[in-house]
Amino acid sequence: MALDHLRSEVRPGAYYDSAVLMQLQRNLLGLPGVLDAGVVMATPANCELLEQSGLLAGTPTAGPNDLLLVVRAGSAAAAEAALGQVDALLARRRTSVAPEFRPRSLETALRQLPEAAWVLVSVPGRYAAGVAREALDHDRHVFLYSNNVSLADEVALKQTALARGLLVMGPDCGTAIVNGVGLGFANRVRRGPVGLVGASGTGLQAVTSRLHALGSGVSHALGTGGRDLKAEVDAITARQSLDLLARDPDTKVIVIVSKPPAPTVATRLLAAAQAAGKPVVVDFLGYPPPGRQIGNLHFAVSLADAAERAAQLAVGLPAAEVAPAAAPPPLAAPYLRALFSGGTLANETLLGLQAVLTPLFSNLASSQEQQLADPLQSQAHTLLDLGEDVFTVGRLHPMIDNELRLRRLKQEAADPTVGLILLDVVLGEGAHPDPAAELGPAIAAAQAARPELEVVALVVGTDADPQGLEAQKQRLAEAGAFVVETTTAAVSRVAQRLGRAPASVNAVLSAPPVALDRLARAPLAAVNVGLESFAASLAGQGAQVVQLDWRPPAGGNEKMMALLAKMKKGAP
Amino acid sequence: MALDHLRSEVRPGAYYDSAVLMQLQRNLLGLPGVLDAGVVMATPANCELLEQSGLLAGTPTAGPNDLLLVVRAGSAAAAEAALGQVDALLARRRTSVAPEFRPRSLETALRQLPEAAWVLVSVPGRYAAGVAREALDHDRHVFLYSNNVSLADEVALKQTALARGLLVMGPDCGTAIVNGVGLGFANRVRRGPVGLVGASGTGLQAVTSRLHALGSGVSHALGTGGRDLKAEVDAITARQSLDLLARDPDTKVIVIVSKPPAPTVATRLLAAAQAAGKPVVVDFLGYPPPGRQIGNLHFAVSLADAAERAAQLAVGLPAAEVAPAAAPPPLAAPYLRALFSGGTLANETLLGLQAVLTPLFSNLASSQEQQLADPLQSQAHTLLDLGEDVFTVGRLHPMIDNELRLRRLKQEAADPTVGLILLDVVLGEGAHPDPAAELGPAIAAAQAARPELEVVALVVGTDADPQGLEAQKQRLAEAGAFVVETTTAAVSRVAQRLGRAPASVNAVLSAPPVALDRLARAPLAAVNVGLESFAASLAGQGAQVVQLDWRPPAGGNEKMMALLAKMKKGAP
Repeated sequence: MALDHLRSEVRPGAYYDSAVLMQLQRNLLGLPGVLDAGVVMATPANCELLEQSGLLAGTPTAGPNDLLLVVRAGSAAAAEAALGQVDALLARRRTSVAPEFRPRSLETALRQLPEAAWVLVSVPGRYAAGVAREALDHDRHVFLYSNNVSLADEVALKQTALARGLLVMGPDCGTAIVNGVGLGFANRVRRGPVGLVGASGTGLQAVTSRLHALGSGVSHALGTGGRDLKAEVDAITARQSLDLLARDPDTKVIVIVSKPPAPTVATRLLAAAQAAGKPVVVDFLGYPPPGRQIGNLHFAVSLADAAERAAQLAVGLPAAEVAPAAAPPPLAAPYLRALFSGGTLANETLLGLQAVLTPLFSNLASSQEQQLADPLQSQAHTLLDLGEDVFTVGRLHPMIDNELRLRRLKQEAADPTVGLILLDVVLGEGAHPDPAAELGPAIAAAQAARPELEVVALVVGTDADPQGLEAQKQRLAEAGAFVVETTTAAVSRVAQRLGRAPASVNAVLSAPPVALDRLARAPLAAVNVGLESFAASLAGQGAQVVQLDWRPPAGGNEKMMALLAKMKKGAP
Repeated sequence: MALDHLRSEVRPGAYYDSAVLMQLQRNLLGLPGVLDAGVVMATPANCELLEQSGLLAGTPTAGPNDLLLVVRAGSAAAAEAALGQVDALLARRRTSVAPEFRPRSLETALRQLPEAAWVLVSVPGRYAAGVAREALDHDRHVFLYSNNVSLADEVALKQTALARGLLVMGPDCGTAIVNGVGLGFANRVRRGPVGLVGASGTGLQAVTSRLHALGSGVSHALGTGGRDLKAEVDAITARQSLDLLARDPDTKVIVIVSKPPAPTVATRLLAAAQAAGKPVVVDFLGYPPPGRQIGNLHFAVSLADAAERAAQLAVGLPAAEVAPAAAPPPLAAPYLRALFSGGTLANETLLGLQAVLTPLFSNLASSQEQQLADPLQSQAHTLLDLGEDVFTVGRLHPMIDNELRLRRLKQEAADPTVGLILLDVVLGEGAHPDPAAELGPAIAAAQAARPELEVVALVVGTDADPQGLEAQKQRLAEAGAFVVETTTAAVSRVAQRLGRAPASVNAVLSAPPVALDRLARAPLAAVNVGLESFAASLAGQGAQVVQLDWRPPAGGNEKMMALLAKMKKGAP
C-alpha cells in the first residue's frame, strides 16, 4: 500500500442521489490502474470508514455536506486520470434517464398524474420534511423513506396528516404494501386476509414473507417508521393504520409489529386494538408478553410466531372470539384493586394488567412510575402482593391467615371508585384449610353493600388438594365471585369490565378517518421523489408512477433555503 | 367507636410462633364484650394497620421486636378482662401439643430421626440463618421458608451448601415437592415426568396444578427462594436443582420458573440448561422470550403456557430434540460478528443471542453494558445494524448497496478470534437485484482464507420475489454459507456453534453434585423447626417428621445471642 497513490477531491455542498454515488464509485473502480475508490458524503463516520480501507491520508478538509472522492491507484497518473473522468462519468449516467421529460416540481408531477394518492420521499433527511409537507398540502399520503429527519418534524408532519385524514408512513419507513403494491422494500406476497401495522421495516418483511410461505396472504401492510411508538409521536400513524385495517372488510386478522415501544404508548395502542373487532396479533420486540391471549389480543414472541398465529387465526377463527356475545358491559366504578397472597401470581398478573389498564400502581412495580407510594393506601388501579415482607413481619403468610386480606377487602370495597376486586385463592398443603369459608362471607358482605361491585377470584389448586378445588370454586361462586383459574383469564376479565377500550378504533383518533376507498380500492398511483429504483419497482408492479427530477432547493445552500421557505410562507 | 374502649399491652422481646399469635387473636375476639382485637409484633407497618382498624390510640411505645396486644371492647372492664385472659389462653393452647415429648435441640431431633435428609425452617428471619447453618453442619438439606433473612446470610449459606453437595431452598421459599411430598405450600399433584425449578413460590404452585389438570405430573419441584437469580447469589440453588433434574431418570422435561432474573444470571442459567440433555421450558417473568424455541430451550410466556408446553413435550418428544445427532462441534474461534441490514431482524436476533452468548455488544443495545463503544470496531460477540443512521448518511441502504457489508465482512473474517459471521439477506422489491452474487464470492473468499470460519446467512424473502428465494439460498449455500430463514433458527445455530454450554449441567457447579439417591429415592423424612402446620402437613402426606420445640436462643436477647454464637465458634 505504501507504493500506492492516493488522490482525493472535495466538492463542497454537492448533491447527488446516493444511487448515483454508488454507480460513480463502481465506474471509478473499473478504470485502468485503479485499485480502490470511495465516493461518499464526508461525514465523520464515512471518513473513518475510508480511513479503515486505507482510502484517507490525514484529516480531510471536507464537511458532512461535502462530497468526497478518493481514488487509490498503482500510479499517481492513473489516480489523477480517474478523478479527471468524474464529470464525464456523471454526465454519461445522466443521459440514460432522460430527465428532460420529467417534471421538476411536485405540483407539475401531480398535474401529470392527478390520481396519485401517494408521494414517495427518499431524498436526504434535511430536505425530506419539506417535500413531505408539500405532499400533505396537496392532500396526498406520504411514504417517507428518508431517515435523519428530526423528531420535531415527524411530530409536526403526523399531526398535520392526522387532522387531514392523511397517512405519513415514516420517516425511516422502509416497507409497506398497499393494495398489493410494495412501496420501498417489500416482498412479493399473495393477497390475503392478514393486515399488518409495522413500526419496523424488516419486521413487516419477515412476517409478510412467512405468511406467504404458510399459504396465507396480506391485505395491506402499513409502515409507520421506527419512532412512531415513542411517547412524543404517540403512535399517530399506528393508530390510523389500525383504524384503517379494522374498517377494511378484506382484513380478517391484524398483526402489529414494533421495535420496543414506549410502555404508555403500548398500553394505549393495545386499548385501541381491543376495539378492532378482529383478532390482533401483537409482537412488540423486547416487551414481555402478558400471556398468549387477552381477549382478542394474541401475543407473539417472535416474527415467525406472529406470522404463524395470524395464519392460524385467519383460517379458523374460534366463533367465541368473533362475537363475544355474552360480554358484560364495563363497570361504572372505574378502578381495580387486586389483593394477592401469591407473589408470582401477582407479578404475572401485573405484567398482564399493564397492557390493558393505566395508571396502574403496585408494591411490586419494577418501574418508578408504577411504584405505589404507600402500600397501605391504594390509588387508581392498584395491585398488592400482601406476601411482601412489609406485611408479614411477625405474622403468618396471607395464604394461611386471611385476616389482613379480609380487612383490606372491606376497606377497598367501601371505596366508591372501586369497581372490581381481584383476589387469589391458593389451595394445597400448608395453606389455609378452607379459605372460601372466610373469603366467601366477606365477598358476599361487600356485594350486599354495593351490588355493582365485581369480585374476581383466581383459584389455584388441584382436585387432590385437601381443600377440594371444586368445592372451593363453588363456594366462592355462590358468594358472588367470578371464578377463574389462570392469571390470563383474570386479566381478560378485568380488561372486559374495567378496560377503557374505545367503542371503535376510530374513536381514539379524534380526527377524520383516513378514507378507505382512496387507499385500498383504487389502483395505486404515486409520485416518486428521490431513489429512482423505487419508481422502477412501482412501475414493475403495474402501478402508475411519475419520477420527479428533484434537486435540493437553492442548490443545497442552507441560508438560501431558509429564505425561500420564508418567502413561500409569506405568499398568499 | 368513640364509645368503645381500647386497652393495650406490650410484651417486650416476647417470642411466639405466628400461628400462636393468630390463634390468640381469634380467642380474644371470642371473649364477652370484645369488638376487635390485634395481636402483632409492633413493626411500623403493623402499627399503621392497627391504626387503620381503629385499634391504636397514639404512638405505641413498643418496637419491632415487641409483642403488642390490643383489645377494643364495649366497656373498659370487658377490655381489661380480655387482656387478663392472655396468659391463660396461651397456656391453654400450649397444653394441646405436648411439648414435653419434643426435642429441644436440632441435634436431639436428628438423633430421634437420623434418616431425616431435610430440615424445614420457618422461625422468624433473624433466627433463621442460624438454624439453617446448624442443619448444614449436620449434613442436612434445608427448606428455608423464613423471610427477612439478609442477602449476605443467603449467599454464605448457599456457598457452604454448594461446597458440601447440599441444597438450601430459600430463604423465602414457599413451595417444594420432593419425592411426592409437598414442603411448605404445595398442591397435591400426580407424580409424573415433569421436574421443576422455581425461583417463585406460587409460580411453582400454578404450574404444578396446571400440569395435574392437564393429566401430566411432577417428578420433583425444587424451590430456590425469590432472590436466587439475583447477581449476588448467582443462582446457586437453581443450578444445583437443574443438575439434579438433568440426572434424574424420572424427569423427562424440566421447567424453570422465575421472577425477573438478573440478565447475566439468566444467560448463565440458560447456558447450563442447554446442557441438560432434555427439553427445558423457561418462564422468566418480565424477560422478553427470544422466540418460542432455541435448541432444547422452550420459552413460555405465562405460567399456564409453561405447563401446557411441558405437558406436550412430555407426551410427544420430537426425536430430533432428544438426540441432536448431527450437531456439529463448537467452533474453536470463540466470537460472533453479526452484520445486519435489517433493523428489526437485528433487534430480534439480539434478544435471542443475549440468552445464549455473553459478553455481547451491539450498536442497538438498550442496556448500557451491551453498548458497543465504537460501531466501527467490534469487540467480543458483536451484532451490528448497518442500517443505523451513522452508517447511512449520504449512502444507499445496505439492502441496496452491499459495499459496506462486504468491507466489514472482510475485516471481521480476518480477525482470528472470529468463529462465526452472521449476515441477513433481505430480498424483495426495492432491494438489491442479486445480493448472493455479491455476498457469495465474499463468503467463499473468507472461507478460502480461513476454512474453519462459519458464515450463517439469514434469508428473508418469498418464492415470488424478483431475486428468487430458492436461487438466492442455493447460491449462498454453494458459496459455503449455512442458510436459515428465521432469526430463531439463526440463534439456534449460533448457540450450537459458539455457545459455551458446558458438557453437563454438573460441570458448571464446580462442586460435588447433590446426591440423587438420598434426595429422590429414599422416603422423605424431616425435622421441622417453626410453623407446626408444616409438620402436620408432612405427617398427613405419610412422611416421617419430628417437630422441634424451638425457642429463640438466649430468650431472644440479641446481645446474649451474639455471645453464645461466639462461645460456640470457639468450642472445639
